[in-house]
Amino acid sequence: MACELCETDGGELLWRGVQCRVVHVDEAGYPGFCRAIWNAHVAEMTDLAAAKRAHFMRVVFAVEAGLRALLHPEKVNLASLGNLTPHLHWHVIPRFRSDPHFPNPIWGAQLREAGALPAEIATLRQALAKRLSRL
Amino acid sequence: MACELCETDGGELLWRGVQCRVVHVDEAGYPGFCRAIWNAHVAEMTDLAAAKRAHFMRVVFAVEAGLRALLHPEKVNLASLGNLTPHLHWHVIPRFRSDPHFPNPIWGAQLREAGALPAEIATLRQALAKRLSRL
Repeated sequence: MACELCETDGGELLWRGVQCRVVHVDEAGYPGFCRAIWNAHVAEMTDLAAAKRAHFMRVVFAVEAGLRALLHPEKVNLASLGNLTPHLHWHVIPRFRSDPHFPNPIWGAQLREAGALPAEIATLRQALAKRLSRL
Repeated sequence: MACELCETDGGELLWRGVQCRVVHVDEAGYPGFCRAIWNAHVAEMTDLAAAKRAHFMRVVFAVEAGLRALLHPEKVNLASLGNLTPHLHWHVIPRFRSDPHFPNPIWGAQLREAGALPAEIATLRQALAKRLSRL
């Protein structure tokens, strides 16, 4: 079966390394939502050798640090699920008290209307990409 | 406000280290559900120094490896959310096609009845604890 994360970037590309990449996701109500995606089609973190696993997590934490510095979220949510797309990817989601699901997980019950992505989204993407370029 | 993860183990204790611990969670339909919990009250992974962060992830991945070896799940789900309990904890959830929410996240729509925890749960806990004792 075709894998979306093998065939496409999986979002707006912010940074690409040899082993993984970071994309920004278009998700109403979640202007800072990013994903770190392993480039090869691998299902589980423990399928990676320890050094690659550690490298991937350093990238995930660099995204978290960038989002915190730029957006000052109430909380950051990190998740590697992949039940439908078993190709390693980490959701990095800055959460705010006013977001559509807070304090529920974004996969839980929606509590508020989702606003459109703000016009400043291009600026946010540039700022994140700049921070990730130091990786 | 009182923090449940400061005041209690947060589940059936399988392993405790100086900086973090691993507990088994009583959750109907999810016999292998574990949590890795940082002992100190810290909200975000990027609040930890890089070496502590790496140590915590090694523990998370040891839980994943143990669960995979013992249960052979379809997929492992990893998540650090903490919107309600901002004390670092990782959900490590072995997922099966027959579980209550698969392929949805466990926070999404339930699709099937949840069975009670099997009688072999004590054996599973012992086997996991034994693997973690090598940490």
